[in-house]
Order: sequence, then C-alpha cells, then structure tokens
Amino acid sequence: MEKIPILKINDCLLVSIQVDLYDQLAIDLQNDLLIKVKETKAKGVLIDISGLTIVDSFMGHILYQITKVTRLMDATTVVVGMQPAVAITLVELGMDLAGIHTALNVDKGFQWLRQHLSGVGS
Amino acid sequence: MEKIPILKINDCLLVSIQVDLYDQLAIDLQNDLLIKVKETKAKGVLIDISGLTIVDSFMGHILYQITKVTRLMDATTVVVGMQPAVAITLVELGMDLAGIHTALNVDKGFQWLRQHLSGVGS
Repeated sequence: MEKIPILKINDCLLVSIQVDLYDQLAIDLQNDLLIKVKETKAKGVLIDISGLTIVDSFMGHILYQITKVTRLMDATTVVVGMQPAVAITLVELGMDLAGIHTALNVDKGFQWLRQHLSGVGS
Repeated sequence: MEKIPILKINDCLLVSIQVDLYDQLAIDLQNDLLIKVKETKAKGVLIDISGLTIVDSFMGHILYQITKVTRLMDATTVVVGMQPAVAITLVELGMDLAGIHTALNVDKGFQWLRQHLSGVGS
C-alpha cells in the first residue's frame, strides 16, 4: 500500500489507520491530511484506529503530532475506536494523549465534533 | 492486520479496503459485515476502494458477492472511490460490476444512499 485514504464526509475528514505507520507512511499521511484540510476546508478530522491491536510510542507520537498540526490548520482531531489493549499500552508507555479528544467509535466521534464545532461557531 | 474495520456512521456502514483481500480476509470481511448489518440494522453499506491501485478478478468477485449478500440482508451497497486504472482493469477483466452502484467518493456515495433509501422507504 502506498497511501492511507483520507475520506471526506460532509465537512469532516475520516482516516482509517489499519497498518503500522512506518516513518515515510506517517509523514505522507500527515502531509496528505494537511493538504486535504486546506482543499476541503474541513473543520474536523476523525482518525479511526479500531483496526490496530498494537501500538508503539512512535504511533502515539504521530497521533499526537497530527492532532497538533491540524489544530494549527483550524481543524479539530478526534481519535476514535481505540481498543482497550491499545489504551493500556499507551498509558504504560507514559503517553496519556493529553489534549487529544477520543471517542469510542466513529459515530460518537462525529456527534462530539458536531457539538464541539457548533459550539465554536456560535 | 487481522480484520478490516467496519465503521458505523448514522444508519450506514463504511468499509475502507486498503489491502489486497486474500481468501481468509475476504471471507472474514463478508461475515463481519453481515453480522454488523444485523447488529446495527444498517440500511446502507459503503465500500471505499480508493486505497487500491490494483485489483484482480478475485477482488472484483468479492465486491460482487458482498453486494449480493448484503442485498439479501436488506442493505444497499455502494462501491466508492474507484481509481481510473482500477475501473479500466475491471472492464478488461470482463467485470463491469453490473448491478453494483458506484460513486466517485464517500460523500457522493452517502448522498446517493440517502436519496435511494428515502425513495425505498416512501
């Protein structure tokens, strides 16, 4: 696989990460995502990691970094679908993903984004 | 990777296929999808293949089969995000995916499903 697809749904973008992000793939994803945020004027980004059963500190760092850079592009990122074992691993690695909003699944992530964005807009 | 995530968005399911479906993965996806359709009472299924740059006749057959079985479970499947090269390959393979609705991207797929499902419901 060369690229992780970024799917536009209404005014949000959805990324479903199903493979380990090695260096180049992570850099490409971040670049593609920022270009897509600019192109589509997306206000929200959902990153689904329900397909991942294992994460390492690199992956945690990438999630953190993507959230920060999309924030600078005026988009809010929500990480959704985290498996229980992944949550445990991240905390054991000392990464509590502070400042990153999480939701149980895509549906709940969308709900939160809608509320959050309507709150920001008002 | 063990499984392809199936994401619920409103009353639809979204599957983003990013890897070649070898035999067992394809069977698992089909089973998981049918279970999820039953669980969530989803009326629409979107299969995004924008991450695929190559398809073979097996993949074409799987897409066809998934569409047919979800139809029996009262859900409508739309294949979205097909790359131009993939469309050419499928036709060259003699698979025009007759009976499968396609859309350019997820957004347009959702639009079509909404119109189609409201038409069916009325």
